[in-house]
This record gives sequence, C-alpha cells and structure tokens, in this order.
Amino acid sequence: MAVRVLGIHSSPRKYGNSFKMLWIALEAARRAGAETAYINLYDLSIGPCFACYSDHFLNCRYPKDPSECPLRGRDDYSLVAEAVLRSDAVVFSTPIYWFMVSGVLKNLFDRMTSLENMIYHSGRSLVDGKVAGVLAAGEEAGASTALSWSVFTLINMGFHVPAWGTAYYHGRGDVLDDKQAVSDSYNVGLNVVRLVKVLRGEEIGNEPWYRFLSDDEYRSLVEEARKAAEEMKAKQRRDRPWLR
Amino acid sequence: MAVRVLGIHSSPRKYGNSFKMLWIALEAARRAGAETAYINLYDLSIGPCFACYSDHFLNCRYPKDPSECPLRGRDDYSLVAEAVLRSDAVVFSTPIYWFMVSGVLKNLFDRMTSLENMIYHSGRSLVDGKVAGVLAAGEEAGASTALSWSVFTLINMGFHVPAWGTAYYHGRGDVLDDKQAVSDSYNVGLNVVRLVKVLRGEEIGNEPWYRFLSDDEYRSLVEEARKAAEEMKAKQRRDRPWLR
Amino acid sequence: MAVRVLGIHSSPRKYGNSFKMLWIALEAARRAGAETAYINLYDLSIGPCFACYSDHFLNCRYPKDPSECPLRGRDDYSLVAEAVLRSDAVVFSTPIYWFMVSGVLKNLFDRMTSLENMIYHSGRSLVDGKVAGVLAAGEEAGASTALSWSVFTLINMGFHVPAWGTAYYHGRGDVLDDKQAVSDSYNVGLNVVRLVKVLRGEEIGNEPWYRFLSDDEYRSLVEEARKAAEEMKAKQRRDRPWLR
Amino acid sequence: MAVRVLGIHSSPRKYGNSFKMLWIALEAARRAGAETAYINLYDLSIGPCFACYSDHFLNCRYPKDPSECPLRGRDDYSLVAEAVLRSDAVVFSTPIYWFMVSGVLKNLFDRMTSLENMIYHSGRSLVDGKVAGVLAAGEEAGASTALSWSVFTLINMGFHVPAWGTAYYHGRGDVLDDKQAVSDSYNVGLNVVRLVKVLRGEEIGNEPWYRFLSDDEYRSLVEEARKAAEEMKAKQRRDRPWLR
Repeated sequence: MAVRVLGIHSSPRKYGNSFKMLWIALEAARRAGAETAYINLYDLSIGPCFACYSDHFLNCRYPKDPSECPLRGRDDYSLVAEAVLRSDAVVFSTPIYWFMVSGVLKNLFDRMTSLENMIYHSGRSLVDGKVAGVLAAGEEAGASTALSWSVFTLINMGFHVPAWGTAYYHGRGDVLDDKQAVSDSYNVGLNVVRLVKVLRGEEIGNEPWYRFLSDDEYRSLVEEARKAAEEMKAKQRRDRPWLR
Repeated sequence: MAVRVLGIHSSPRKYGNSFKMLWIALEAARRAGAETAYINLYDLSIGPCFACYSDHFLNCRYPKDPSECPLRGRDDYSLVAEAVLRSDAVVFSTPIYWFMVSGVLKNLFDRMTSLENMIYHSGRSLVDGKVAGVLAAGEEAGASTALSWSVFTLINMGFHVPAWGTAYYHGRGDVLDDKQAVSDSYNVGLNVVRLVKVLRGEEIGNEPWYRFLSDDEYRSLVEEARKAAEEMKAKQRRDRPWLR
Repeated sequence: MAVRVLGIHSSPRKYGNSFKMLWIALEAARRAGAETAYINLYDLSIGPCFACYSDHFLNCRYPKDPSECPLRGRDDYSLVAEAVLRSDAVVFSTPIYWFMVSGVLKNLFDRMTSLENMIYHSGRSLVDGKVAGVLAAGEEAGASTALSWSVFTLINMGFHVPAWGTAYYHGRGDVLDDKQAVSDSYNVGLNVVRLVKVLRGEEIGNEPWYRFLSDDEYRSLVEEARKAAEEMKAKQRRDRPWLR
Repeated sequence: MAVRVLGIHSSPRKYGNSFKMLWIALEAARRAGAETAYINLYDLSIGPCFACYSDHFLNCRYPKDPSECPLRGRDDYSLVAEAVLRSDAVVFSTPIYWFMVSGVLKNLFDRMTSLENMIYHSGRSLVDGKVAGVLAAGEEAGASTALSWSVFTLINMGFHVPAWGTAYYHGRGDVLDDKQAVSDSYNVGLNVVRLVKVLRGEEIGNEPWYRFLSDDEYRSLVEEARKAAEEMKAKQRRDRPWLR
C-alpha cells in the first residue's frame, strides 16, 4: 500500500512561499511513491481548545460524543483529525507570524491533544509512530522558534521526526529562486516517506538522508511548483478577492 | 492621572492558576496606585490574522475602514485593541498548551500587528513606549518557550519589558500555595507600574526592582486571590456548565 | 551486532538529576539489548568553536590536520567526536542553566558542526541517519527551550529523533521520586534503540512507542539508579571536594 | 555623569557582521551622549559554570573569596563582571551558531548567575535596574531563538529591556548593506541609553522609541562602521593569522 502523506497548510495566502515549499515536499513524496493529500486550515474553522484535560486527564478523548465536548461537532476539527489518522506522515507548513507558527496552526496543535491524550484511554496515542515534517516561511526571523517548537511538540505527541525533517525560507523574494530552501523542502517530503517505509520494514537502500538536487531536478520542480502556485492564486482571487 | 493596567487573560478556565497569577499582578498594580481592567479572550471571538502586510507593508493599519479588511467589524478584535490603546501597561496571562501560549493569545498577537504596523503609516507604533509583562501557568514544561517568545515579540511591537516582567508556575497544585510564583506575579504587576511612572518622569525611589513579599503580605494576597477565583468559578459554572 | 548508545552528560554534578535520568535511559537501552557508553563533558576540555565555515563553507571538516584548525589537537573534542562516530544513537543529558542547555553542551554542539559539515565534502553528514534523544533537568523553567532547541539542531545535523525522544524533570526534589519523569527517560533510551533497529531492518513488533512502566519495573530501576548515583557521588567527592 | 554602555561581543570573527552591528549600536549610544566600552569574549577565557547554587542557593555569590569557588581567580570572568557592574547598560552581540548564541556567550550568561544570585544575599541583584539590548547575526535561522532566550534571561537577571531592544541580520551578505538591520542596531544602542536616562529621571522628550535613519545618517554610519571593521580585521590578522 502506498505511503500516505498529508500536507497541512496554515497560511491565508494559499499560493505563497509556504504553499510552494509544501508543494515541493509533497511532490518529493509523490516521486518517492507516496499518495498525497492537502488541507488549508484557512478553508476551515477550528476553534480554540478548552483544555478539558486540565479538569481531569481523562476528559479529553477522540472521537467523542458531541454532547460531551464544548467544541466537537461545532467546527471542522474532526475533518482534519480524520485526515491525520488516515495518513502515515504529516507535513505541516506555516507562514511565520511574530516569530512563530500562525495562530490557526497553534489552535490545531492544541486541539490535536485529543489524539495524543488517547494514550491515557487506550495505552496508545492515535498518532503513535506516525512521521512528521515541518516547513516555515517568512521574511523576518522566527523560523527557528517555529520549527523547534513544532518538532518538539510533534515528538511529544508520538510522531517521529526524520533527519532534515524541517525546512525554512527567510528571504525577501520567491522561495523558488532559492535552491537551498527548495532542496531542504524536497528532503522533508522525501524523508518522511523514507522513514515510513523503514518503519514498515521496507528496504530503502543506503543513500544519505540529505539528497542534493541536480540542477535539472531543481528546474523541473520549480517549474511545476510555479504552475501549481499560479493555479492556487487564480482560485483564491475568485474566492477571496480582497486578498490580492 | 492614575496608571492604567490592562490584564488580558487567555484561558478557558477563568478561575485557574493563570487567572490567579493575573489577579495577583493586577492587585500589585492597584496597591501601587494603578487602575486596572480585565479581559478574558475566551469571552470574545478573535479571528486569525490574514497578514495583509505580506501583500504590501501598508495594507495593515488600525483602525481601518471595515470595507478594507477581511476581519475588522466581523469579530471582537477592535474591542481588545481599544482596551490596549487606553492602557499604559498590559499584563498578558496564558495557560501553557503544548509548551506555548494558548492559540487564542497567538491569534491576538498576530492581529496586534495592526497596532505595530502603524509605524509605517505615521512613524509610531500605536503601542510605542507602553509597558508589558507576561504570566504563564501549566503543569508541564513550556513556560520558558511561552515567556521568551512573548517578551521578544512585545519588545518588537514597541513595548518595554521591565526587570522581572515575567512569572510562571509549573507545579501540579494551586499556584497560591507557591510563594515564589505569587511573589514573581506580584513583581510583574508592580514593575510594569513602576516603569510607567518612571517613563512619565515620576520619582519612584531606589527600592530594588524585585520586592520580596512578607509572610503577611503573601497571606493577605492569597486570601483575596482565592476569593476572586471562587467568584469567577461560580460565575463560569453558570455560564458554561460543561466546564467543571 | 548490538546497538551502541552513547550517553553524553553535561553537568558538573555528576550524580544529580540529569545523571539519574541519563542512567535510566541507558539502562532502558541495555535492557533492549544495547551496549552503552558514558561521557561527562565536565571531565573534558572542549573549547569554543571558531566557526571557520563562516569564512568558507569548506573550511570546516572532520577529522582534519591539526595544523589547519585553531583548536583540534588542543582540546578533547575529537575524543567526544570519535565516541559519537562509533555510536548508533546518542542520548544527551543536560542540567538547565538559564532556561537552556549548559554552556559546555552548547560548545559541544557548536563543534559538532565539523561532523555535519562533511556533507559539503563527501555528500554525507558524519551523523547521517544516527538517532538522538535528549534529557533535561532543572528546578526552574527552561526544559522546553532546551529540548526544542536540541532536537531541532540534532535533526539539522542528520539525526533522527524518535517519538517521545525527549524527557525532562522540573520539580524541586529527586527525579527518581517522579514516576512520570522516570518513565519518560526510560522511553528515550528504549526508543532510540528501537529506531536504530528499525533502521537496520530488524523487526521490533507492534508495541506502542510509549511504554508505561509497571510499578515493579519503576521500583527496580529507581533502586539501581540510586545506587549508581551514590557511587558517582562518592567518586566525585574524592575528585572535586569543593563540589559537595 | 555620562551614561556608560558596555558592548560584549562573542564572535571569533572580530570584524564580522555581529561586530558591525555592535559598533553601530555603540555609535548610536555615543551620539546620544554615552561613554562606551567594548569586550570580545574570544579574547578572554571564561570557564563553564559549576552551578554551586544547586547544592545550596547561598553558595553562589559575587565577588567571593577565590578559595570558595572552583573557578574564580582561575579565568577572566571577574574582568567581565566588573565591566558589567561599572555599566548602566550592556549590549550583547552574538553570531548565531546552531540557531542560538555562541557557546562563549552561553557560558558568560551561566556565570552571571553570580551577579543575579546576590539577591538572596543582599536583597538586590547586582544588575538590578540596569538596561540591556541584544544583537545577533548569522546567515541561517536562529535569530529569534537566540534573541528571545537572551531577553527573557536578562529580564530574569534584573535588566530592563527597552522597546526594540533587539536586532538581527540573517542575510547572506554584509549587514551594512541592509538599512533595516543597521537601523534596528542603531535603535538598540539609542534605546538602552534613553531608558537609562529615563531611569535617572532625565527628560528625554516625546520622540517615538523607534527612530528611522535618514539616508545621510545611514551612509555616514556605514562608512564609519566599515572603517572600524577594517581596523579590527587588520588587527586580528596579526593576532590570529589562521582566521582569514
């Protein structure tokens, strides 16, 4: 069965640098044989967590009867949760707002407590042994704060993070012009797939865990990513004309 | 004119440890002569930022015509923004979710970009020269991540942060039983007021910037804080019975 | 061939909480069949990095002729580097000083650039595909800052970090009295071994990646850890009588 | 009496971007009437902290009899400590190594515990009410991690941090070509002086706390900074020919 990789994008600019990086990562996953899916959190409504476990550690569970939970059934969280549960690996991509992940991604992580907290109900986190990678883009500083917090949190939910499982871009232009950032994003997608395969007992050979892109690979990736971003932009202009 | 201190609470548990710490800080401010106000973000709806400045750095401003902005007028942000603008100092208090501030506080910070970004419109951030402090409570780790990110961000918005302008509690019980955490919270409230006074040219004497509480002070503060928390809890039980 | 796990301790208190956590992790590794080794950075002298790669990205390499390098041959770095190279997994353990890893551990990470930077010389980081875990202990806050920075850095050197590959203790007493922290430390040691085995193509079954300790296991681990710490303390009292 | 500002540089490249930023900050301080001093930690030997307070909170003090302390008198720490004590404000400048301050700066912060810990001996931290700013330079990510950790730590030692009291550069070229980073560095130096003056009860007017540089100011600052860096480089080439 193909490895399933879910990309979760958390930027209102659905065609921007964090999208392009995610597209590169997902394309790397596809080229490694994975099936990919994509969600943008700005298409959904995910309310803030009520941290029910603070009252009692068993109060937080997934799934649960809507009557028990202040939020479940009233927003789109379970849609994302189900997509995560269907996946072997998740790649998160975020713009950097005030040196950190976007508020919508923070809210999602807070809500994902319900997946991790099942460890107290059933002895196993619902993301136990899945694999994660994280991407971040923003002109100003913050990539290291956003990425280090993200990977630390994901590890504490039960995800593995592979070597070079994060990438960032903090330049002022188009990330696709930056070969380093494109290569790094590519390796995030490639390595989550490779680690899933290893965890399934598949043989993956002895290549280094960082793969340098040839100039040809770089060019072809960039060309396709640019096309995908343009389509996204056209679509977004129709949906949200006030986002230029 | 009295110093005005705004407390912004970002926990759904309106009577919990982060509330108690904030109450102590605001009480310290009152004892130093300040007027205080209090907002809980879980009483409001504050949508995620659309980062309009990413398209053009002049796209983000406060206040702006509702027609220009995807969010203004459609949620309660301007209510918080106005309260911030009326204040000389702001003390933020957050529970720690996944080693960081709560998602609602992250969303507020993201939206406060509109205050800071006025520096490009008028040459002055709308929070220029105000004073800030931050409090964090949570059983697990995360206080240092939440507080260091918060103060760094606030400084970059134009706030000053005074000596010992942050406090945390990461124990498993009631913060009010922890004299260190109560003293630290007290100093946050005291020091934001002292720094505002200094900035106004008022004389504040030569006391150390960290003030140790006497046992009597500690006891009386704790007693009053407990009463305030109980009132909050009774009120919340009426409003949100599913939060026990 | 047995999995080889190296424990790197970076506290001057060689018998303290960060030691005990590391001992638990290494014991977990041994119980999972690994061979373990142990280094305390305070027994060695590791000078600060001169960041030669800043002048040219090829200036930094390992090993290199002592004549080329301002430091190599003049301190004990290569001793640690060789131990890392001989290992399949490394578990770092640090006390928390000012909300971060100790200065000696920061200096070691800075110097380990020479291992990672070989990617530009030979196409492969010298720690490519190894596995890492991190432990942190300290009364005050800082665990999240220290651990998130550590895992993010290790991932960027080429290490994988497994699910629950970090653990901390931030209480005021003896970490061995805290079952959660002992369990967490145990899982760090267990999971680095499990991930190494998976990477070697060995079958490890389908147990959850977080293993709860039975009361008996907890008691026996604690008893042995206490003994090991007492021996360390006796030894240190002879070597460094001014450290009580 | 003139405001005294100490610049502490922690890069082995004494003429590089972190030097230039520090020079700009100190020049801003001088233009605001301050006297400045400069220390490079790579000219000194500062050993790692032994965290004596972990054994008993009164074990750490400054100054102390050399016989009591494992390190005092055996390295150059007291030289830096005395310089800090003589100053009203300190501006730290660091290169970014692995997303964080350099190891030598971490070691200095660890040792500065002796200044802060005097609060338990005399009721007042020895840096109580001083003012601090922080600068960071490095091609890769890390500025936000380094700066947020630094300001949080300094606040917890007893320093105030003014609005825009941090600056960074994460581009690939010469920081002096980046007007934003030069302006930001300038404001760090200016604002620590302004806040010291305010704390002394001096009138500083009602200018915004962020001051935009005119093109002329920018050009003249850059020209002088370049000259200062060239002198440093010539000097360093004589002292350490292996650092090109």
